[in-house]
Amino acid sequence: MDKLHVSIVGGSGYTGSELLRLLVNHPHIEIDQITSRQDDGKNVTEIFPFLPNKIKNKFVHPDNVSFEQSDLIFFATPNGIAMNFAEMLVSKGKRIIDLAADFRIKNTQLWEQWYGMKHACPKLVETAVYGLSELKKNEIKNARIIANPGCYPTAIQLALYPLLSKKIINEQTIIIDAKSGISGAGKKIDDNLFMAEAYDNFNAYSVQGHRHQPEIEENLKEITNSKDIKALFVPHLLPTVRGIYATIYVDLIDDVSETEMDSIYSEAYDQSIFVDYMGINKIPKTKMVRGSNQCKISAFKRDKKLVILSTIDNLVKGAAGQAIQNMNIMFNYKESDGLNLLPLAP
Amino acid sequence: MDKLHVSIVGGSGYTGSELLRLLVNHPHIEIDQITSRQDDGKNVTEIFPFLPNKIKNKFVHPDNVSFEQSDLIFFATPNGIAMNFAEMLVSKGKRIIDLAADFRIKNTQLWEQWYGMKHACPKLVETAVYGLSELKKNEIKNARIIANPGCYPTAIQLALYPLLSKKIINEQTIIIDAKSGISGAGKKIDDNLFMAEAYDNFNAYSVQGHRHQPEIEENLKEITNSKDIKALFVPHLLPTVRGIYATIYVDLIDDVSETEMDSIYSEAYDQSIFVDYMGINKIPKTKMVRGSNQCKISAFKRDKKLVILSTIDNLVKGAAGQAIQNMNIMFNYKESDGLNLLPLAP
Amino acid sequence: MDKLHVSIVGGSGYTGSELLRLLVNHPHIEIDQITSRQDDGKNVTEIFPFLPNKIKNKFVHPDNVSFEQSDLIFFATPNGIAMNFAEMLVSKGKRIIDLAADFRIKNTQLWEQWYGMKHACPKLVETAVYGLSELKKNEIKNARIIANPGCYPTAIQLALYPLLSKKIINEQTIIIDAKSGISGAGKKIDDNLFMAEAYDNFNAYSVQGHRHQPEIEENLKEITNSKDIKALFVPHLLPTVRGIYATIYVDLIDDVSETEMDSIYSEAYDQSIFVDYMGINKIPKTKMVRGSNQCKISAFKRDKKLVILSTIDNLVKGAAGQAIQNMNIMFNYKESDGLNLLPLAP
Amino acid sequence: MDKLHVSIVGGSGYTGSELLRLLVNHPHIEIDQITSRQDDGKNVTEIFPFLPNKIKNKFVHPDNVSFEQSDLIFFATPNGIAMNFAEMLVSKGKRIIDLAADFRIKNTQLWEQWYGMKHACPKLVETAVYGLSELKKNEIKNARIIANPGCYPTAIQLALYPLLSKKIINEQTIIIDAKSGISGAGKKIDDNLFMAEAYDNFNAYSVQGHRHQPEIEENLKEITNSKDIKALFVPHLLPTVRGIYATIYVDLIDDVSETEMDSIYSEAYDQSIFVDYMGINKIPKTKMVRGSNQCKISAFKRDKKLVILSTIDNLVKGAAGQAIQNMNIMFNYKESDGLNLLPLAP
Repeated sequence: MDKLHVSIVGGSGYTGSELLRLLVNHPHIEIDQITSRQDDGKNVTEIFPFLPNKIKNKFVHPDNVSFEQSDLIFFATPNGIAMNFAEMLVSKGKRIIDLAADFRIKNTQLWEQWYGMKHACPKLVETAVYGLSELKKNEIKNARIIANPGCYPTAIQLALYPLLSKKIINEQTIIIDAKSGISGAGKKIDDNLFMAEAYDNFNAYSVQGHRHQPEIEENLKEITNSKDIKALFVPHLLPTVRGIYATIYVDLIDDVSETEMDSIYSEAYDQSIFVDYMGINKIPKTKMVRGSNQCKISAFKRDKKLVILSTIDNLVKGAAGQAIQNMNIMFNYKESDGLNLLPLAP
Repeated sequence: MDKLHVSIVGGSGYTGSELLRLLVNHPHIEIDQITSRQDDGKNVTEIFPFLPNKIKNKFVHPDNVSFEQSDLIFFATPNGIAMNFAEMLVSKGKRIIDLAADFRIKNTQLWEQWYGMKHACPKLVETAVYGLSELKKNEIKNARIIANPGCYPTAIQLALYPLLSKKIINEQTIIIDAKSGISGAGKKIDDNLFMAEAYDNFNAYSVQGHRHQPEIEENLKEITNSKDIKALFVPHLLPTVRGIYATIYVDLIDDVSETEMDSIYSEAYDQSIFVDYMGINKIPKTKMVRGSNQCKISAFKRDKKLVILSTIDNLVKGAAGQAIQNMNIMFNYKESDGLNLLPLAP
Repeated sequence: MDKLHVSIVGGSGYTGSELLRLLVNHPHIEIDQITSRQDDGKNVTEIFPFLPNKIKNKFVHPDNVSFEQSDLIFFATPNGIAMNFAEMLVSKGKRIIDLAADFRIKNTQLWEQWYGMKHACPKLVETAVYGLSELKKNEIKNARIIANPGCYPTAIQLALYPLLSKKIINEQTIIIDAKSGISGAGKKIDDNLFMAEAYDNFNAYSVQGHRHQPEIEENLKEITNSKDIKALFVPHLLPTVRGIYATIYVDLIDDVSETEMDSIYSEAYDQSIFVDYMGINKIPKTKMVRGSNQCKISAFKRDKKLVILSTIDNLVKGAAGQAIQNMNIMFNYKESDGLNLLPLAP
Repeated sequence: MDKLHVSIVGGSGYTGSELLRLLVNHPHIEIDQITSRQDDGKNVTEIFPFLPNKIKNKFVHPDNVSFEQSDLIFFATPNGIAMNFAEMLVSKGKRIIDLAADFRIKNTQLWEQWYGMKHACPKLVETAVYGLSELKKNEIKNARIIANPGCYPTAIQLALYPLLSKKIINEQTIIIDAKSGISGAGKKIDDNLFMAEAYDNFNAYSVQGHRHQPEIEENLKEITNSKDIKALFVPHLLPTVRGIYATIYVDLIDDVSETEMDSIYSEAYDQSIFVDYMGINKIPKTKMVRGSNQCKISAFKRDKKLVILSTIDNLVKGAAGQAIQNMNIMFNYKESDGLNLLPLAP
């Protein structure tokens, strides 16, 4: 089988390096171009010495690359970049997976409000597919543009989907207390991201509102065919590098037994190789998924409430891993190709 | 002024060592006895080399000590120890501060259910004072036995007290997502407490129910004169040594402006040197209180809900620091004596 | 090709779990028995929830297992266990890889002195092969018993071998300042291994002498055909889980140019897929090898001295990874089978 | 007694904030001005929320301040700043403590070579006193300008001073393997200082040469009256925030008994409240001094070599704490004023 030629725009951030870590061992991939403004001309292995020496790519400047040879382009860029390239690339028959937020929200007005900029291609947003791999497989197969979900939204939507689909919880009283390792913030100049500040520390942030809340609400509504969804989402910064952990509090509409809970989740994910429903009263931990594309979910009943726990590695299932899972679906590879990674524990 | 003679039972755990760290610089204290079964006969500075060499105490076996010279005895022991010594000590005119849970819950039946043992002195429980320093100052002054509050309950009750007292929130729909550094678990043999397991990890625990929930509910009800209080409390283990962080979600009964919120908290704590209400929309962090007796609180309005953030150092304000604060109140010292510690940051 | 049947004795420690993590994806292996005293009867995935659910093994008690079906048995046990089983297993035609120290030192008297016990089978020690994969490939192929090297000795010997073989450094003035993550200490009850103690801490240990020093000296002497080797070895405990980092100070006998240094190391390791000589004046970091079987080495000239830096993951190249590399050599598999893991970074 | 008026130039870095943390509780100090370019006009407590609310200072721009009211000015600035203000301030009768490197090396040519800039006031360098508090007390008393020692040099010189003074070790074969927490690098834009990079990582740096080496050699030579001193110094980056740990390897000239070793160190530091010689064969740990002004030292004999271990908190004894200790000496306060801090452990 011919190799698929893929390029990465914005290859020197954390999601870019994670794409490389995963693609290097993918059986069907050839890496074409990797762009970087700041590292233009340097060997990729010089910037990422953890990569094997067999990788001979050099970073190229994004202005100097046409992607003629590429079948698929990953955007591992800040928000607001992919939307400027999308039309041109799609018109040339390329397919795109955007790991940033440009295509995640259909309601462009809402998007512009949360992201503070004018959208460059609202028309294309309509055609883009929200790449929550397990729940949108058919649409992903044929998509030209994949909006790769945010890290929090991935962990949270996988946890809530079975409950909302079955209409057993109140859609309006969802409370999500979420925690993320520091790589979720990306590589940028911010005192809070320094080791001296973040180590041995913990705090909430964006308590007044975070961009992942509209993403979660809009997509869950569509995926679960709900009338309306209201989720109070509060993110926190963990003193770790990787890991998303969501603790979700919901109100049961009617009583549901623990056995029924088990059935609901098992039915939803029995065929999913990357979502592991652990069962009632089990404890997932971030280290159980660190470095892997797994999502681990469990549920607890507390009177008329449920507490749902969900954990992923933000850079894998929450970013690069899910992007590759989506690529595998788009190009009819085995869903696990390149993703056959066990978590690193202890 | 004569020095106060204090002893510590169970001096080789984390709360014991923290009491020592704080008492060493207290202007009015002389340390009498420090007991330890495992370190009997050893120099305290051998076990705790961070303590100054001027401390000449040796650990003594608890069976070999009568506390004749002691005015006050701290119990930094596991649950179920202090209750066996209390009657004898009180009868000799000693005063007691128990840093464990033996006297924290008035409802003995409830206590026995959660702690899995028979209570040795239910009568004394009635007379014990729950030592939440800021909110029980008058009772503490004259107490013979102080039940020093748990670490989670301290952070949580200080955060909820003003709201419940003013009857502005629904008492029945309180959700508490709490996080603790690992020293909160004490020094015991448990795989989860090993560095190899806990480092770079995060998880919920005791999701089916935690002993601090009845403590919080019973005491808040009494302190705030509420009819009933129902709090869904879910604790998590932070990959840090110290720090409690509580994110609390409550429903407003009627709308309350941000200015009113500020007034409610300011009124409650303006006179409290150790509770710092930061104001609306501020972010407390665990490192802002690490090593100090401070509690930092802030509040956010999200439609008809409030999100309250509260942080303390579990070993200081959540244990040894509050114990010394209570001692200062009991013996008419300045409330800040020995507690004049700034947080260690960065 | 028929699968190789392998068993693990002592499967519930860190090296045992790491063997499992690596063997699960090995193309030619079937896992036969996994023993554990403490977890006898439990599912392996219950104790190690990071392993995939497809693993159906249960832990068995070591007294209840005969290894009849096994071709190869890994001992991931404490020191002094494998030596008691070796004769029986070898007599049945089994091959053994001992990840503990029982067969690492030929001089039995020296071994007994450092390990404080009588050796059970000194005769077998003579026939055992020290499994430093890169440097003993031919002997490993035919070995019945492999003494898998210690973690420190692996990083240190790979760093020193080229210099000592070429006789360019003084054998008697070697100083090794080595650092290890906490998993190197194994899973045992020791206050120093608790998160509350080890986090945000750093210290030397065993400064008066460490068992890895005679292992290093004896084997380096043999491998490099040296008259005598004297290494002052001081280990330190890093506040991390994984990672060995050795900073080695040696005296050059005659001046050697940087180009010659590069040649000496390149010649030694150009054919080795797991040893990456980075070149003169490069900086290896523990995270560049975390989770992988790589060893990264660099060298610096400072007047008449060399400073050599060498890093490995103690659980992979320093234990389970090298054990599998040795198995691959013994059974004529590709040396990289099951070890095709990239480091986890960031 | 009148309060001493002190100002801080460069108050928003780590040494600036540490000075504030320590000065706040100093009995004889009034803080006059705190300068910051980036935080000009902001409340100090806004930038450092761990400081108590009673601090009412605002940051001022360094161009807008004359220090007329100040008796003493601390420079907590990058290298190359203090030297531009020194002449003007000294001419006005002010005294200066520079926490950067401008006055640490008498040999201006050597300084210019290592620091890559022209020195602005070589004359003043001659009059400046190297503020290693324990070893230069008399000169410090009368100094106009104090060159506060670097963090590594403090830990290392205190460890080596007794041995070099007594002429019992070879001055030319000193090897120093040193490790520092990340705050030692200051607050600056550097990928290596990000949590995502530094957490769970470890590496050497500046192996080809570090500025603290000439500082150590020059000052030790003068303090110990040595002919020449040659130290091979290799620094490493610890994945912690605070802490310097030096492991020093030296050659004994003649044999010295362990008892003699104890005497040599005890004699040197028995009167020093901040240097704790722990004795032969003891293990200091960084956490034993974290947050305090202590230096802990121990020694081990290994044949004809000594291994010396020395640890300090780089921000306290290695920077702000020693600066205040020097201030106390200069102004005849008790040496421990404001420095009566116990280490934060665990």
